Parts: sequence; structure tokens; C-alpha cells
Amino acid sequence: MMDNGGFCNDNYHSGSSDDELVDISDVTVNFSEDVPPLDRDYSAGGCKADWRPNNSPKLIDLMDDTVPGIGTYEDFNTIDWVREKSKDRDRHREITNKSKHSTVALLFSISDAFSGWLLMLLIGLMSGALAGGIDIAAHWMTDLKEGVCLNGFWFNHEHCCWASNETTFQERDKCPQWKSWAELMDGVSEQGRVNVLNHFMYVSWALLFAFLAVILVRAFAPYACGSGIPEIKTILSGFIIRGYLGKWTLIIKTITLVLAVSSGLSLGKEGPLVHVACCCANILCHFFTKYRRNEAKKREVLSAASAVGVSVAFGAPIGGVLFSLEEVSYYFPLKTLWRSFFAALVAAFTLRSINPFGNSRLVLFYVEFHTPWHLLELIPFVLLGIFGGLWGAFFIHANIAWCRLRKNTRLGHYPVIEVLVVTLLTALLAFPIEYTRMSSSELISELFNDCGLLDSSKLCDYTGNSGSTSGSVNATAANGLGARLAGPKLYTAMWQLALALVFKMFITVATFGMKVPSGLFIPSMAVGAIAGRLLGVGMEQLAVHNHERDIFRGWCSPGADCITPGLYAMVGAAACLGGVTRMTVSLVVIMFELTGGLEYIVPLMAAAMTSKWVADALSRESIYEAHIRLNGYPFLEAKEEFRHKTLATDVMRPRRSDPPLSVLTQSGMTVEEVERLIADTTYSGFPVVISQLSQRLVGFVLRRDLFISLENARRHQDGVVSVSAVLFTECESPASPGAPPAVKLRSILDLSPFTVTVHTPMEIVVDIFRKLGLRQCLVIQNGRLLGIITKKDILKHMAQMANRDPESILFN
Amino acid sequence: MMDNGGFCNDNYHSGSSDDELVDISDVTVNFSEDVPPLDRDYSAGGCKADWRPNNSPKLIDLMDDTVPGIGTYEDFNTIDWVREKSKDRDRHREITNKSKHSTVALLFSISDAFSGWLLMLLIGLMSGALAGGIDIAAHWMTDLKEGVCLNGFWFNHEHCCWASNETTFQERDKCPQWKSWAELMDGVSEQGRVNVLNHFMYVSWALLFAFLAVILVRAFAPYACGSGIPEIKTILSGFIIRGYLGKWTLIIKTITLVLAVSSGLSLGKEGPLVHVACCCANILCHFFTKYRRNEAKKREVLSAASAVGVSVAFGAPIGGVLFSLEEVSYYFPLKTLWRSFFAALVAAFTLRSINPFGNSRLVLFYVEFHTPWHLLELIPFVLLGIFGGLWGAFFIHANIAWCRLRKNTRLGHYPVIEVLVVTLLTALLAFPIEYTRMSSSELISELFNDCGLLDSSKLCDYTGNSGSTSGSVNATAANGLGARLAGPKLYTAMWQLALALVFKMFITVATFGMKVPSGLFIPSMAVGAIAGRLLGVGMEQLAVHNHERDIFRGWCSPGADCITPGLYAMVGAAACLGGVTRMTVSLVVIMFELTGGLEYIVPLMAAAMTSKWVADALSRESIYEAHIRLNGYPFLEAKEEFRHKTLATDVMRPRRSDPPLSVLTQSGMTVEEVERLIADTTYSGFPVVISQLSQRLVGFVLRRDLFISLENARRHQDGVVSVSAVLFTECESPASPGAPPAVKLRSILDLSPFTVTVHTPMEIVVDIFRKLGLRQCLVIQNGRLLGIITKKDILKHMAQMANRDPESILFN
Repeated sequence: MMDNGGFCNDNYHSGSSDDELVDISDVTVNFSEDVPPLDRDYSAGGCKADWRPNNSPKLIDLMDDTVPGIGTYEDFNTIDWVREKSKDRDRHREITNKSKHSTVALLFSISDAFSGWLLMLLIGLMSGALAGGIDIAAHWMTDLKEGVCLNGFWFNHEHCCWASNETTFQERDKCPQWKSWAELMDGVSEQGRVNVLNHFMYVSWALLFAFLAVILVRAFAPYACGSGIPEIKTILSGFIIRGYLGKWTLIIKTITLVLAVSSGLSLGKEGPLVHVACCCANILCHFFTKYRRNEAKKREVLSAASAVGVSVAFGAPIGGVLFSLEEVSYYFPLKTLWRSFFAALVAAFTLRSINPFGNSRLVLFYVEFHTPWHLLELIPFVLLGIFGGLWGAFFIHANIAWCRLRKNTRLGHYPVIEVLVVTLLTALLAFPIEYTRMSSSELISELFNDCGLLDSSKLCDYTGNSGSTSGSVNATAANGLGARLAGPKLYTAMWQLALALVFKMFITVATFGMKVPSGLFIPSMAVGAIAGRLLGVGMEQLAVHNHERDIFRGWCSPGADCITPGLYAMVGAAACLGGVTRMTVSLVVIMFELTGGLEYIVPLMAAAMTSKWVADALSRESIYEAHIRLNGYPFLEAKEEFRHKTLATDVMRPRRSDPPLSVLTQSGMTVEEVERLIADTTYSGFPVVISQLSQRLVGFVLRRDLFISLENARRHQDGVVSVSAVLFTECESPASPGAPPAVKLRSILDLSPFTVTVHTPMEIVVDIFRKLGLRQCLVIQNGRLLGIITKKDILKHMAQMANRDPESILFN
Repeated sequence: MMDNGGFCNDNYHSGSSDDELVDISDVTVNFSEDVPPLDRDYSAGGCKADWRPNNSPKLIDLMDDTVPGIGTYEDFNTIDWVREKSKDRDRHREITNKSKHSTVALLFSISDAFSGWLLMLLIGLMSGALAGGIDIAAHWMTDLKEGVCLNGFWFNHEHCCWASNETTFQERDKCPQWKSWAELMDGVSEQGRVNVLNHFMYVSWALLFAFLAVILVRAFAPYACGSGIPEIKTILSGFIIRGYLGKWTLIIKTITLVLAVSSGLSLGKEGPLVHVACCCANILCHFFTKYRRNEAKKREVLSAASAVGVSVAFGAPIGGVLFSLEEVSYYFPLKTLWRSFFAALVAAFTLRSINPFGNSRLVLFYVEFHTPWHLLELIPFVLLGIFGGLWGAFFIHANIAWCRLRKNTRLGHYPVIEVLVVTLLTALLAFPIEYTRMSSSELISELFNDCGLLDSSKLCDYTGNSGSTSGSVNATAANGLGARLAGPKLYTAMWQLALALVFKMFITVATFGMKVPSGLFIPSMAVGAIAGRLLGVGMEQLAVHNHERDIFRGWCSPGADCITPGLYAMVGAAACLGGVTRMTVSLVVIMFELTGGLEYIVPLMAAAMTSKWVADALSRESIYEAHIRLNGYPFLEAKEEFRHKTLATDVMRPRRSDPPLSVLTQSGMTVEEVERLIADTTYSGFPVVISQLSQRLVGFVLRRDLFISLENARRHQDGVVSVSAVLFTECESPASPGAPPAVKLRSILDLSPFTVTVHTPMEIVVDIFRKLGLRQCLVIQNGRLLGIITKKDILKHMAQMANRDPESILFN
């Protein structure tokens, strides 16, 4: 049923230790009751000539409370949004009705109404705390690769030197308490050996961390690998993947994320943080009946949790909500918007009170710029956009090709070795260059940084900087242009950055998709930030060397910083992230929340727009959609319009060459016949018609419900045998005296199945499926049932129209 | 057809001078063609036994190009979203197909793809420019009520004194060039007479402005009155109100908005700016075929335009987009989100380059706070939320009652007198108190302001301020607590603010809904800001007087400003605005964009949440929904879930006592019979069945299309007489030799009407209507057609379930 490469592990069904996405097993029912539960309501009612089904509202209660399993879903199946929402409305109605009668029920109804907010609060607190923990641990372990603090091994480099009295402001990260591994072992020694030893320790720690990460993932939670966003998108669209958001996944993903980030691999923690937040949400849902029992309600909570994940990853609550809305969520009612925002804020403030970076900011790379940008700078910004778009398209293409290779060749059988090889390569190549040695988020922070006067970074080595120490502001302004001439260290830095760019571009392709938690926000941003900084410094030097030219004269008045290379880095980061993920508004808003200035929105927007257009021109899919398709998930993209001219009749089954549609008749079939039909076919449901001759539609019954009900009737209803009649009618037909009792199944019959006609254009059918969240739809003409269209049929059809292999759609 | 009170004017159909919302009249067709256009495709095809309609994709082309009027809508009707979207997809498909064949077509296809962005750019530029003009003009005319500038009458007070050399920093608004009317006329005179004269001039100018505004609205553009947001919400949900967004409405609304704001009435320009932006969008749509010809596409543009309106009103592009998403829009695809954001940004930057307030900010009341807030302050913030909720509920109730009174009594017949009386009252009462005399946005700006050390405002009269001029920061800190003790002027200001609060609360109720453009964002915010500032100053004095108490000790360390009354004003403004409009995320984001600091989101959110809960507990509707209901628009609220247990059969027509459903048969009816059916009934469409006996559904035909086609056939098809057969079948039945030629109408038949079964719960039906934007839906049981449900039926049913008068729903 499932293909190997789909997830990062081959033993999908081994996840028995994980929590189920739905846990309905706590509904205990006394099976020893003699009265067959399904009959309870119908035996008394008698037969009504009226076609109005008075007892149909009872349907849900019955399904919910009586026969366990009815109304639930199998693993790797899609939920029926309409049914779930009906269930919730019924529940709500019942609570509201009861609350009118007693005070206790009223209190219960109020607590029920506020439970959503409480849940959001808890998700925010838990995710914020976890994110803070991950940040602190990853920071410490990253530094552990280089050395250790003598004051206490639990201090990271920065904290170690903070505590020291011998730290100067100029060299914040040098202090005697912090020892590199070589210093610790050799004392003082010749430089070459120190370097080799440090390099060796760096590689060893990296390998250890990566090995631990991949082993933990394989042993305890196969679902903990990757970024998780493609799967969460699919789950939010209504798919069931049991265990994907369970407690084991949460624990292992949290631990291995720290390990993977610390190992220095080219990956980020932003995507996995969304997964972590969703796991928190799913686990917390267990404490609230309202959400535990309803898949649709649970998905509302998960939508909010994705917003929380981005909120803590970037310190951008508004951006997080828009990310959830734009990128992840499928069904996003406005109530969820408000709640998501609340949860995102709570998480952001929890993280802030933990203060993992010691700067009372939520992220390492918060920036403030002071120089306005000039209109002409839009040209390099658009160039960065084009670079971002090209990089995005290249990355998606190369990464998908690589993943396909991993899936289809023997490479996929050795995930541990793959991780170790990539880590070894990364660590070996990364150590020599300062910019690849540091963690990606530190790199981004450094690249975004606007050079201050006292900055000691290589990137800020301008010849004027050390010369003009005259203190007076005017003096600095007078030889201001000199202050922006690049010094030798800056040239070195440029070369190193260019090497780092090439290195990051290729290693990221190989890293994303390995069997460790890996996000690609940070690597993409790093690539863009490097490219942007290079271009920014280039532009700056161009302006400095040509400041007499007409074009720069009005713009770069002597003494003023006219170009901010940090802004270029930021624009480049936005462009590359946009190219890979195809985010638009949320991307700009996240970046806006990082800078806080409305004036920098325009460059960001120009780059993001260009990047999206360029990338879309090359290939339509974002990396997440590409991975969804690679894994064959049944995801009906809401953004792309279906543009083909086909009609429902072209898509419905049975095709003309197929045997006729398997239907049940509302009366006249025996238990044995129905059971044989179930055994002979694999359809997930059967239409019920008045008679085989007229083919006039009565309703639709799900295979799972039918199977469970028949089993239940056989076991608990007296006298049911193979020749017993199965009745979907409301009124019992006068049975012959000696006949065995009939099994009455109207209660599991969906009397209002969705129908379209054969003439309905597929674009409308697709629209209906998307907007209402259907699983299947029946096709009729002039009142006669002709066929059925399932979500899988639609996805296969869409794949076919796009000249792809329709068999790549694996699930229903 | 329409009730008097619906709009602000009684001659609804007089708007012939206005542009139509849809202008399809430019589709010219040569009627002299001999071949009846509708037959073109079917005569050749022959009769197919196959039920697959090969020619049905042509349907749209035919409708679009051939018979004028088919596919358009009548005034005060709802559009069919499904059909409009299909039309657009067909158009797009055709362009894409053509673009493969020629370069010109390819260029056209590219220009078509980018026309949306161009349109957004133009809307942003135009709306931004108009908003800037309105701001400048309103500012000048508001000042004109008090005096005139001798340097040039076109300077407003502030500009007049800027130009002057004699202005000191302390008294920025005093300069000899600015003369009040009394100074100009009397020279120097006794104080009493000056006051009376100034008061008289103030009232006279106010009356003049208000009179001009109401006269212009009545004479040229009745639709220009009110805020416009309820109508825009309704239009965005698919309703057609011709002329509501036409060029006359735009011109008159722009002019009268300036007049109304300048007259000093308690109204704001924010809501009307949304209307102005939508008018711009609608007018600019005329230049783009893609948008002119498609009602659904046009509504996407209008959604973006609402974002633009809020963006220029508050200088909050992100808030504007969220406002459009949350409050106004009905159908908001993600593509629109990105485009809205673009348009909102363009508009904001256009407005900023106009710089109407001279502070390079987009709004008068941009604020920056410097003091963090304490957790305990959440208590007063929540209190403000409760106040906001109560005020919101009170305002909505009182305003609706007042509007109902106006509608049902003779009061509604004298709109000019009403405006003049309210203006007179406002001006007479407002002049004596400084805080009511100034414009509401200036008042808000003053109330939001954080008191600096040099502030000369009465609200900043703290006794310590003048005393501690020792200059040293430490000295100020030492007697810092003294610096926050209220001075006598502050006490006066408090009394005046309290009076202003009562005055604003009542006068706003009477003002909103008058026949002048009037927004209620600013008045609501003013009420909240006054209440907030009062509470803030109260809290501050409490803290100052009790700074030794335990509760304040850790919080208010001596010398530090521990409470910012300006923040309280802002929180109060958010609470009151939230109570009236029930905005949530967008409200908080707009306020966040005004302050720019993430730390103030929590107080705003606490107040907005409390306010919404309190207001919702008292009544569920926002002021916009209340006005929509008051006017009987067919608006299906997307936020409220339908929670009743009814089934489709309870809502469908015909009811049991009614005559049977009027249906057409697919063959066997004559032109005369069909025409009689059209004449005898008022239904907007008819189902087509196989035969009266079987009642098996074939399709659905719209009254308007049927009428136009029959008219067309009678006029242009040879030999069509009253006894000619009307055929909806694909194949011509073998007619008797001498019979007149049949009218074949399959092309106007909708072969894929939406159907539900009698058992479908209404909650699902409502969901389908909302999400797919249907106009009607057929009800079948076991393949037989039983009834029909229209949007109006649903709205009536919902009104009935909520114990309201179902006859209040006026339109379909």
C-alpha cells in the first residue's frame, strides 16, 4: 500500500508506540447488552409513508456513542470534512440545549466555549518553552564542537566570556576561560597542529551528533525526520497519518533537532519547529474532548500550531499567522485566525521571557538599519530577486532529483551511512572557512548586520574605520567616503563568502531529505544572505570609487553611508527563501517583523515578487508541493486552478470498459451478498440505490461503517445469519414469517451524498472537492446513478493532464 | 421592490447617470445575421445517442459573444459565482491556447497576466493620491472654521505658523499671521465678544459645510452617503448595486467627505475612504477587459481595494489586508492576498510622498511609547475592554433604533433638515470645550501622545514639570515622582474630557446613518481614547499618591514613568473600535502598525478580546452586519455557523400547501406556453425535467436568459411562432412535416445545476451556498425533483430561526 521512499523510514507500521493521531479507543462500550445497538431507535418508530426522516438527526449520536469504530478513519485515509463538521455542530447543539436546563450544564457549556482559548494558551506556552530549550541547547552544543568553558562545561562560548572579567568590548568572544580543544589537550603548541587537532575534534563531534540523531530517528520515531511541513500540509488537508504528531515524534524530533543543528549540517530548525508545535498541539488536544474526538476541529488547532511554530522560529507572530494561512492551512475559518494570533503571541512572549539569545530578542538575526535606500537600488534588489528565483528553481529540481535517486536506488537502504558521509563532508569542508564553520543562523546574523563604527568583524574592515579615531562626528563625516573603502580583510571575507556560497548551495541539496530533522529556511536564507552581502559590498565599493559620477552624486553625498550591505543580505535572503518556498505575503511580513521598519518593505517586496515570478516561470511547484507529490500524498492544491476542459464523465469510474459500478440496493440483499461484495472489492464506500434496474440513488455507505456494522450484527444481534436481509429502507418490508431477522442499516447510510451531473465541468468538481473537503462524489444523469469520483480519481486525473504518472498518487 | 430606508435616498433607480457596476453594453452584435445564433453549433452536430455533450464547452462562448444580455445580471440581484468563475477560466484557457500559436497572442497573454498587477498599481496610486488630497483639504477647511491665514488663505493653521519666523517651539500654534475670525473683524476687543463671534463663525461654517455636503449627496449621488462598508460587504458577497461604485459616487463622495469632516460632525473618513478606494477600483476595472467583463474577477479587485482604503486611512498596509480578509471580503483567494498587499503598499507610499501631515507619517496619530507596561496593568486594560464592549453594544443598539425610527417615521423625509439640526447641535455644544472643538483625529493624536518634558499641552501639566529644571538627569529622577503629580490644568482637562466623552457618545449615535459620508472608526476611537486617557491619568495619580504601597513598590520605582496614559488611550480606542466593528486580528495589527512595538500588542489584544466577548455576549452583530440586516441585503454571513437542525425539505419551495413547482419539460412545450410561464411567475429560473410525470432533472435555465433567448428567436429566427416547440434536448425529435421550426435552447441550459437531497441538513446547504457562492440549488429525492432553495429562502429561514421577520430580506 505504501511506497518506500514516502517517509524517511521503511517500517511505517512499526509506529505502534506512537500516539495515534486520533485516539478513539477510550470509548468503551458494554458489548454484553442484548439489544442490538443499531436497532434501538428504529424498532419503535414503525413505518412512515412520509419521506421526511424524523430520526435522522439521531444518526450522529448513534455513530458516536454506540458502535465503536463507526465514524473513525483508517490510517492513510482522508477524512470527510462535511461529516466531521456536522458532528461538531451536533455536539455544540446538544451542549447549548442542555445548558438551558441546568446550571452545571451551563457552566460546562461556558468551559467548553473557552476550552479552545485555554488550549491555545497551553500550545503557546509549551511550544515557546520547547523552542527556547532547543535554542539554548543547540547554541551550547554548537560551541562544544570548538571548545569548552573552564568555569563550567554547561556554558556556551558567549556565556563563558560574559561571566569573565577579562573580556573587552572589542573582542567579546576571546577570554581565557574558553579553551579550544587543542588548547585543552596540548597546552600551547605550534599553530599547524592546533588547527589539525581542532579540525579533528570539530569533525568528530559533528559525526557523533549526526550519528546520534539518525540512530534515534530510526530507532524511535521514523516520522521525526525531514522538515515535516509537506506532511503537515497534507494532514491539514484532511489526511490521516497516525503517529506523525505523536509524543514519540515530539520527544525524538526535539532531541534530534538539537543534535542535527549542532552537528553543523546545512539545515535549519524553523521547519521542524512547526512540526514540534503541531505535535504539542496534537498531544494537548487529547485533554479536550471537543478536539480529541473531531478530526476537523483538531485541524483548526493544528493550523494555529503552525503559526506558533513560525512565530517562535522567527519571532514574528503576525508573519506566523500569515504563513499558516498562506502556506500550510487548507481550511482556515476566521475564528482560527484570531486564535492562531493569540497562540502565536503567547509563544513569542514565552520564548522572549526565556531569552535564549541574551539580547531580549526572539531571534539571533534581528536587525535595525538606519540608512534609507535609494530608488535606483531597486535594480540590484530585483537582480537578487532573479538570483533567488533561479536558486529556488535549481534547488527544487536538484533536491527532487536527488530524493528520487535515493528512493529508487540502493542509496535509500543506507540512511545512517548517508548521513555520516554528508556530515563528514560538511564538517571537513566547513571548518577551514570561518563563515561555514559558524552555525548558519550566526552567519545570517553577521551578514544582516549593519557595520557600526566599533565593529570588529572582518566584514566591517573599512580602511577609514581605524584611521578616523578623531572622535568628533564632523571629522568622521569629512573623510566619510574614505571610511567606506574596503580594507584587505574585507577582500578576504569576500573570497571566503564566495566559497561559502558555492559550498552551501550544493551541500544543502544533499542535506534536505536525509533521515534527520532538517529545515530549509535557514540554509536558503544563508545562501541568499551571502549573495546579497556580496552584491551589497560590490555596490558599495562601486559607489565609493565612482562617487563623482552623475548617477551617484545626488544619492551618495560624501560622508553619508549611502548603501547598507546588510540590507542587501536581507533582501537576498528573502529572495532565496521566496524562490524555494514560494511564500509571498508571509515572507515579506516575517522579514518586516525582523527589521521593524515599513520603509524596507518595498525592497523586500520587489525581491520576493521577482523571485516568485522567475521561479514560477521555471517550475510551478514549491519545495513542499514537490515533496508532497514525490511522496504521493492525496493533496488537492488550493492555489492552482484546474484549467482543463474535461467533464465529470471523463473522470468518474467505472470507465466505459470497466464492469458496472458496485452498488447496494436498499432492500433485497442478504448479509452474505453484502459481505461478498465487501470482500471482492476494495472501494471505500458503496452507493445505495432503489433497485439495480432503476439505479436511482438513495444514499452512500462507507465500507468501514458497513463492515463494522455487519460484524457487530453478526456478533450481537440474535438470529442474524448469512441469508438475513440487509435493509437500508426506513420501513420494514413485510418479511415472510420464518425468515431470519433483518439487519437494518439505515443509520449508517449517508442520505445526503454529494452529487454532480455527468455534464459538470471538472473545474467545478475540483472546486467543490476543495472547498467542501469531500472524499467522494456521485455522478448522476437525469436521476440515474452513473458513477463515482473520489479524491484519488481527481488527483490521478490532474496528474494525467499535467503529463505525470497518475500512479504516483498513492493514497485515498 | 425596494424599501425606503435601505439607502440614504428614495430614488434608487434615478442613478442612471452613474456608471453601471457592470458595463456590458459595449458588446455590439450584428443582429442582421440570418442564421439564428443559438443554433449555430447544434444544427450540424446531428443527434448523438451518447449522453456526452461534446458541444457543451461552447456554451460559454455563445453566451458571451452572441446574444447580448445573456450572462448578465439585473440590478439588485446576486451573481452566480460558479458561472462567473467558469467564464474566467474559459477566457484564460482560450488565451493560453492561442498564445501557443502566435507571438502576438503570446504577448497578449503575458500582458493579460500582468494586467492584474498594473491595475493594482493604478488603484494604489489613485487611492493614495485621493486620500492625500482629502487629508489636506479637510485639514485646511477644519481650520477655516476658526480663522484664516494672512499669508495666504490656502494655508492651514499649522502651515501658516510654520512659514512664520515668530513661532516658538513652545507655542507652535501661535503666530501673528493666523487670525481668528474675531481678530480679523473686530481688531482687539473684549474677550466675551470675541468668543461669541468666533463661536458664531464656527457654527456658520459648520452649517455651510454640512449643508453643501447633504445637498451634493442628494442632488448628484445618493449612494455617496454613509460609510459604505455594509454595502461593499454585500457587493463583495456577489450582490449587484449599479452605480454604487460609479464615477459620480466617487466624485461626490470625495468632495462631500471633505465637507462632512470639516463641518466638525462626529464622523471619520476611514470607512468612506474604503468606499472611495473601491470606486477607484471599479472605475479602473473598465480599462481592463478581464475585469470589466467578469463580476467575480471584479470582486477580487474590490477586495484588494478595501485593503487599500484601510491602508491609506491608518497607514497600515498589513492591517488593511487583514481587514479586507477578516471583515469585508467574502471570497478571498490567496492570489488576491498578495495583490492586495501590493496595492496597499503602493497606496501607503503614494500617500507618504504627498505627506499630508508634514511629519512623514501616514496618519495624524502615529505614536511611540518608551515605557514598558507592567503585568498588573492588564486589569485596567481589561476594564477598558469591558467598557469598549459595552459601548459597542450600546452604540449598535441605539444607532439601529435611531435608524429604524428615521426609516419608519416622517423623520426620514427631511434629511437636509436632520443634517442641519445635528450639525447645529454639534457645533454649538462642541465649540466651548477645546477637546470637542478640535477635529476627532487631532483629539485622538493628542490623547495618544506620551507626555514629553517640554510638552505644553494641558494634558501634560504635571506639577513637577516646571519645577525640576535642574537639567541633570539624576535630579529629575530624584524628584521624579513629583514630576508626575497632576497640576491644576490637568484636572481641568479631565473634566473637559469627561464632558467630551458624554457628548461624543450621544452625538455619534445620531450622526452615523445621516445622509452625508460618515465613517465611525474615528468617533469610536475618540470615545475609547477619552475613556482610556481618563483611566490612564487616574491610574497614574493612584500610583503617584500610593507609591509606598506594596503593590506599586516593585513596579513604580521613583523617578521612572511607570504608567503611560497615552497607552491607555490607545488601548481604549482599540477596545471601543473592536466593540463596534468586532474586528479582531486586523484591529490589533492596525494598532500595532501605529505604534510599531511588539510589546504593546498584548495590552491591545487583551482589550480587543475582552471587548469582543462582552459585545458578543450582548448582541452578536457588528454595526456593519446590523446595517446590512436593516437594509435587507441578501448577505450570507460567513462567520456565523448555522446551528439549527432543520433539513433542506423544511426550507425548499414549494411548501406543502403551495402549488407544485413550476418546471419546464425538455421537449413538448411551445413558445407560447413558456412565455406564459414566464409571465405568470416571478421566479428567477426554472428547472427543466424530462417529463412532468417522471420529474427527473435535466438542467436549470435562468428566467433572464430564457426571456432574452425567446425574444431573440422571435425577432431573428425565421418562422418562429407561438406554437413553435421549445426544445432543450440535444437531438431534434422527428417533427411532423408542416410544423413550424423549433426553438432550440440547450445552449442556455445549465446542465450541471447544484442539487441536494431532501435529507441534507440545512447546515450543509448553508455551507455549500457560502463556499461556492450559489444563487439557487435544486432539491431532489431518489432522482426526482422536489423543490428549489434560493439564497433568499435561506436568508428568510435563518431570519425565522432567529425569531426575526423573514420579510425583512428584500432582495435575491
